[in-house]
Amino acid sequence: MRVVDIIEKKKRGNSLSKEEIDFIINGYVENIIPDYQISAFLMAVCFKGMDDEETYNLTQAMLNSGEKVDLSDISGVKVDKHSTGGVGDKTTLVVAPLMAACGGVVAKMSGRGLGFTGGTLDKLEAIPGFRVSLTKEEVTETVNKIGVSVIGQTANIVPADKKLYALRDVTGTIDSIPLIASSIMSKKLASGSDKILLDVTVGSGAFMKDIDDARELARQMIRIGNKAGKETKAMITNMDTVLGVNVGNSLEVIEAIETLKGNGPEDFNTLITEATVLMLKMGVGITDEEARKRITEAIESGKALEKLAEMVRCQGGDPAYVYNPGLFKRAQYKGEFKSKQEGYIKHMNTEGCGICACILGAGRETKESDIDFSAGIEFIKKTGDYVSEGEVLACLYSNSEEKLNTGLEYLKDVYTFSKDAPPEEIIIHEIIE
Amino acid sequence: MRVVDIIEKKKRGNSLSKEEIDFIINGYVENIIPDYQISAFLMAVCFKGMDDEETYNLTQAMLNSGEKVDLSDISGVKVDKHSTGGVGDKTTLVVAPLMAACGGVVAKMSGRGLGFTGGTLDKLEAIPGFRVSLTKEEVTETVNKIGVSVIGQTANIVPADKKLYALRDVTGTIDSIPLIASSIMSKKLASGSDKILLDVTVGSGAFMKDIDDARELARQMIRIGNKAGKETKAMITNMDTVLGVNVGNSLEVIEAIETLKGNGPEDFNTLITEATVLMLKMGVGITDEEARKRITEAIESGKALEKLAEMVRCQGGDPAYVYNPGLFKRAQYKGEFKSKQEGYIKHMNTEGCGICACILGAGRETKESDIDFSAGIEFIKKTGDYVSEGEVLACLYSNSEEKLNTGLEYLKDVYTFSKDAPPEEIIIHEIIE
Repeated sequence: MRVVDIIEKKKRGNSLSKEEIDFIINGYVENIIPDYQISAFLMAVCFKGMDDEETYNLTQAMLNSGEKVDLSDISGVKVDKHSTGGVGDKTTLVVAPLMAACGGVVAKMSGRGLGFTGGTLDKLEAIPGFRVSLTKEEVTETVNKIGVSVIGQTANIVPADKKLYALRDVTGTIDSIPLIASSIMSKKLASGSDKILLDVTVGSGAFMKDIDDARELARQMIRIGNKAGKETKAMITNMDTVLGVNVGNSLEVIEAIETLKGNGPEDFNTLITEATVLMLKMGVGITDEEARKRITEAIESGKALEKLAEMVRCQGGDPAYVYNPGLFKRAQYKGEFKSKQEGYIKHMNTEGCGICACILGAGRETKESDIDFSAGIEFIKKTGDYVSEGEVLACLYSNSEEKLNTGLEYLKDVYTFSKDAPPEEIIIHEIIE
Repeated sequence: MRVVDIIEKKKRGNSLSKEEIDFIINGYVENIIPDYQISAFLMAVCFKGMDDEETYNLTQAMLNSGEKVDLSDISGVKVDKHSTGGVGDKTTLVVAPLMAACGGVVAKMSGRGLGFTGGTLDKLEAIPGFRVSLTKEEVTETVNKIGVSVIGQTANIVPADKKLYALRDVTGTIDSIPLIASSIMSKKLASGSDKILLDVTVGSGAFMKDIDDARELARQMIRIGNKAGKETKAMITNMDTVLGVNVGNSLEVIEAIETLKGNGPEDFNTLITEATVLMLKMGVGITDEEARKRITEAIESGKALEKLAEMVRCQGGDPAYVYNPGLFKRAQYKGEFKSKQEGYIKHMNTEGCGICACILGAGRETKESDIDFSAGIEFIKKTGDYVSEGEVLACLYSNSEEKLNTGLEYLKDVYTFSKDAPPEEIIIHEIIE
């Protein structure tokens, strides 16, 4: 087999065999095939796509490039949840403990921030002492005891994806549905849960800008998961506005805590409820009605919040922060962003909101740089709200006055206004079961 | 400027600016931009193409990456000829001396064999003593004295093309018309001639398999040449059968000699006549009629052959071989390939014919390997001929019995037969002046 023949076959739009895909992925991971052939191959995939069989085989080849986590020592049906990313997406922080409080089991691996999107691990580390690296034994013990644990990916999970992702990032080959689907699903299948709920975000703050692309990505991932023997469902959710009101690490933890207490913003409340209902139906096998009842009870009784506190304690963090979010260190500088005009907020460029939070210090400039946990934005007004001139639209937080001013300037271009009310934002476009 | 943004811009099908193209080419030549970004870029170009402006700018950026040959010390209008390659293509061996014998001036740089196609330099080196590396002074002196010289490319001509070509070869990015056009034209513009005649081959023995692609390639190259101030014309010629009857280095020299004496095969005769007419019109400014008269005289008087002998002598070769081709060493083994059936030869896979010649030893296995000058094939029968069972279709020559047998076996798949006569082969599809 010659790499160049496989590249040309894909370039002509033909389907590759399992052997050809294995040859490409194994050769790349073993450093036999050079980057420059793989990047040409990836670009050909961007143009010609892959059919379901190829995407499945690609996922399997990537999955087989590394270790697979064995969660069989944990009792119960482990349900994983994965979001394709967004701005203000603190869903896991709520859904994981809420699920456990309702009788479900979550042993989840999360990721770090990427580009303009935040990462669950970074958010959890905003809680002093919280450890995202647990041993296999610690995870098993924690989940068997309290029903939930959220940790970072171990180093040996899907090395093919790490290598491919780094190459895609610098060669303009990120936005290919089969490449995205196989990247996500290889990691999901490697992380050992029994069932998977996918949250495919769509809109100006998501990687998928178009609902049809989001639907196709969801469909491909569901087929991969089911074919691999892990029941997989998906929600297609709106990321054309910030999710909830807070963006930034400790700000999002605070919002998650409020939501677990029943005080969350309406859009976020809807999302975490529907996600948890789906996960409870998959993992515990209860009815929709029963799931909703348990969720309401867990929140109203304080059990949901307690579960987060337990998880924080089990992973080395200080649970006092969960019960008293006032303990979180505030940023040194605060700036109010005020509307220059009267009218409805017609649209917010959500990617811009994420970039603005990064400017304030909430993201990493390079892979090695530190995050400013207290930096971020509180959106007082969002798409669809009527605002008067001079009204505060957002509060910006940073520990650098310079960054604060840059952020305030940057946010100007994020909003568009209209005289008439825009159509109401849809929170969940559809659920694919 | 970021490479990834330029890649993505091309991927979306947008036109690149001169600055962006310069940035890519200069960065690559200076080893600032890595192979893996360039190969992704090239694949995007394969899918999205380039407009005339981009292709011109790409050609200029490549041209400017190295030295440009200055032929201004040579008097007269220097006309270059370039073929996009084929099997049995010994056109330069005839056209260059014939042109000089008719009063034209040719100071030409040729190439070596590539894949299944032969190279003029390799063929010339089949003449004992022939030197393809002359100094600038030697070329000037030779051409001023006899009107013709054919040499190899100097090392510093278009380094960008050398680097890009090597990368394209292993990344499935050869067959892109703007990439081919800029590769050829950057070298033609760098080699110092005043005018250029392009022979764009099409068919199963050419890189262009399709007449529309050949036409588009010709059109793009003509525009580049003319825009750069060098009058450029093109012929689109048939390479769906072997050109002439001989394939292999000394075999092709012998056929060229016979053609210069007026004994060439009909198809090759037509091609060299039309090419020389065009070049004489461009270089000497005479009419079509006058050009044909001079060609007939040069061949009939023996002047054309004499000119080849002079060129051989000036470049260190033994002119005795020109006057007595029987001096060329014959291959040790000869094998006859006989027809297994009766009927018309409907088609010959011409690439297959070229590969068969390489199998016999006429081509290089690796860049470093030696050529067997006497190896090759004499095609006794070609497309359109009626043959009876057991009739000899081709004689194969090699200095290895094993290679001879492999070649005889390989040739079986090259022919297709039919009961009815196939349509007559067109030699020159069209001339674009």
